[in-house]
Amino acid sequence: MLDVTPTHAFRTIRDEGDVVVILDQTELPHRVVERRLSTLEEAVRAIRSMQVRGAPLIGAMAAYGVALAMNEDPSDAGLTRALESLGATRPTAVNLGWALAHMQVQLSQLAPEDRSRAALHEARAICAEDAAINHAIGEIGLALIERLAREKQRRIGVMTHCNAGWLATVAYGTALAPVYAAHAAGIPIHVVVSETRPRNQGLLTEWELRQTGIPYTLIADNAAGHFLQRGEVDLVLVGADRIAANGDAANKIGTYLKALAAHDSGVPFYVAAPVSTVDFGCARGHDIPIEERDPDELRIAAGLDFAGKPVRIALVPPEVSAANPAFDVTPAHLIRGIVCERGVVRPQDLRSQIAP
Amino acid sequence: MLDVTPTHAFRTIRDEGDVVVILDQTELPHRVVERRLSTLEEAVRAIRSMQVRGAPLIGAMAAYGVALAMNEDPSDAGLTRALESLGATRPTAVNLGWALAHMQVQLSQLAPEDRSRAALHEARAICAEDAAINHAIGEIGLALIERLAREKQRRIGVMTHCNAGWLATVAYGTALAPVYAAHAAGIPIHVVVSETRPRNQGLLTEWELRQTGIPYTLIADNAAGHFLQRGEVDLVLVGADRIAANGDAANKIGTYLKALAAHDSGVPFYVAAPVSTVDFGCARGHDIPIEERDPDELRIAAGLDFAGKPVRIALVPPEVSAANPAFDVTPAHLIRGIVCERGVVRPQDLRSQIAP
Repeated sequence: MLDVTPTHAFRTIRDEGDVVVILDQTELPHRVVERRLSTLEEAVRAIRSMQVRGAPLIGAMAAYGVALAMNEDPSDAGLTRALESLGATRPTAVNLGWALAHMQVQLSQLAPEDRSRAALHEARAICAEDAAINHAIGEIGLALIERLAREKQRRIGVMTHCNAGWLATVAYGTALAPVYAAHAAGIPIHVVVSETRPRNQGLLTEWELRQTGIPYTLIADNAAGHFLQRGEVDLVLVGADRIAANGDAANKIGTYLKALAAHDSGVPFYVAAPVSTVDFGCARGHDIPIEERDPDELRIAAGLDFAGKPVRIALVPPEVSAANPAFDVTPAHLIRGIVCERGVVRPQDLRSQIAP
Repeated sequence: MLDVTPTHAFRTIRDEGDVVVILDQTELPHRVVERRLSTLEEAVRAIRSMQVRGAPLIGAMAAYGVALAMNEDPSDAGLTRALESLGATRPTAVNLGWALAHMQVQLSQLAPEDRSRAALHEARAICAEDAAINHAIGEIGLALIERLAREKQRRIGVMTHCNAGWLATVAYGTALAPVYAAHAAGIPIHVVVSETRPRNQGLLTEWELRQTGIPYTLIADNAAGHFLQRGEVDLVLVGADRIAANGDAANKIGTYLKALAAHDSGVPFYVAAPVSTVDFGCARGHDIPIEERDPDELRIAAGLDFAGKPVRIALVPPEVSAANPAFDVTPAHLIRGIVCERGVVRPQDLRSQIAP
C-alpha cells in the first residue's frame, strides 16, 4: 500500500477497521469536527449532506460505504441495496459511479462471508490510488507553474473555483495540488479564491490555504472577471466532476463563467483531474447529468453568531422562488489542457491519448 | 412638477419639507422600514451605508442631502462642506457628481438665505426628472420586449443583475422599467434574478418582483452562465453606474461575467440607463473609478434568525484576507445597445448621437 500521508494535519477520510472517520466539511471553516460512520445509512447521509464532497472524495466515501454495508449485510441483496442507495446520492461526479462499479465487480464474485474484508481492502486501495494520482497531478501542474514563473519573473497569480484541494480528495487535491507543489518549491504564488455560492466551498479553499500559509485573496464569485481583467491572474486551475469524451468539463456551478473571463483576458484555463474523471460514455457536455440541489441552499446561510455559536439564518423568506443547479459545463474550446496523472492533455486529444 | 407617483405601494425617497423620508434598503427584503433624515450627516450615512443605493437614487439623495445641509448652514462654507462630504461617499456612480454639480451651479449664485428653499425645489425637480426619464426608458425597452415576444411566440426570459428596479431610482427603475411595462402590457415574462453577492441586491429585485406578481427565479450568481446556456434567457437587461464615451459600462460587480455569457450564448445584452449616466469625461471604461468596499461585506451575512429577529453572522473569521471591488466594466463590444430616454443607442454611437 502506498503512503497516503498528506502534507497537512488532518485527513478527509480514514478507517479504523469497522469505522470510517471523516472530517465533517459542513462544520468548516469554523470547527474541525470528525464524524465516525459505521453504517451504510450514515455513509449515504455523509455524501448527500456534503459532510464529504469533492468528486474524488465522494468516490472514496462510496467505496467505504459499501464496506460498511458489507459489515451489516454481505448478502447479494445487501450488496445491491448498498450500490443503489449510494449510487442515488449525487448524480454529477463520475467518481461515484466509477467506485461503485469497481466495488460491484470485485465483490459480486466473492462469497458473502468474504465480502466485508475484501470491501475494506478495495476501499483502502481506492484511497491510496487517489492520493498517488493527485500527487502526480501536483508534479505535472507544478511544471506549468514553473514555466509561468520563469516567463513572468514575478509572483504567479492562480485563480481557482470551489474547492479542489485536499479536502475534495483523499490527499493533495487536484487543482490545488500544483499550488501546494509550487509553494513547496519556493515559487511565489498568490491564489484568488471565489466564495462559490451557494455552498461556499471557496471558504474550504480559503481555510486550506490559510492553514498552509499560502497567500490568497477571497473574492465574491462576481469579482472573478474583474480580477482577470486587471491582470492579477496568470492561470486558472479548477477541478472537474465529469469530463465528456469531447473535452467538455462539468464542474461546480460558476466554472463556465470563469472560463469565459479567462478566455476574454487571454489567461490560460486548465482543468486538473484524474483520467478516471473522463466519461467516454458521454459524447459531449450536454449529456452530463446536472444535479439540481435544494433551493434552500440559496435561502439559508450558515455561520457563527457573535457568541461564536454555529447558527443558520434566513437570507430570504421561504416563499421565494429559487433554482439551484450545482454544476455547469465548460465547453472544450475554453480549456487549454487537462492536467491529469498522465500529463497535460488537450481536450480534443482525450479520445486519442486517454481512451481505454 | 411631474407626477412621480410610481405604480407600487412604497416610495424610495420623498420629502416632508424639512425632513427627507427614505425606505431603508438595508432592512429589505425582511422589513419595510422608513427612516427620517434631517441632517447632512444622516444623508451622508444613508448613502455610504447603502440605506439608499442605485445610481439614480444616490443622485436624488445627494440633492436632498444638500437641501438638508442648507437648512443647517446655508453659508458658502456650509455649501462647500455639503458638496465635499456628499461627494466623498461613493466614487463610481456618475449621478452623484452630476447631482452635486447641478446643485452647486444653482445654489452658489444665490444669497445664503434663499438657498434652503431653492435646494429643496431643485432636489424635487431632480426626482421628478428621474421618474420621467425612467418612465420613458420603460416604454422604449418595452418595444424591445414586444419584438422578442412576437418573434418567439412564447414567454420571454429576461436576466438582470443587482437591482435596477424602482428601489434603485426615484420611480419605475431603469433595467426593470421595461419589465414592468411588459407585464402591464400583458406580455408573459419571466425574470432570472441573481443574488448579487456580496450585498445581495438581487434580493431587492426578488422582493420588487414578488410584490408585483411577476414570475421570477432567484439563482446564485454562479448559475447565470448555465441558465443562458440552457436557453432560458432571451434578453439580458442591466443598469449602469457610469458609461464611458466609448460605450464601456461600469455596473455592479459580476455584470461583465453575464455579458460574456450572453455573448457566448448569442443572447442580446442591453444596458438601461439615463443619458446622464454617460460620462464623456471618461474616454474608456479603464478610466472609471471602481469603488473598493469593506471586505467585511464578504465576511458577514445578514438575515433573520429562526425567531424572525434580524441578525448578522460571521461566514468566515475576521482574519480572512478578502477584497471587495463593487463594480466591474463591461466592454462596449459586448453591449448590443443602451436603452435610454432618447431611444436605443449603440455604444459606438454615443459620441455622435448623445454627446452634448
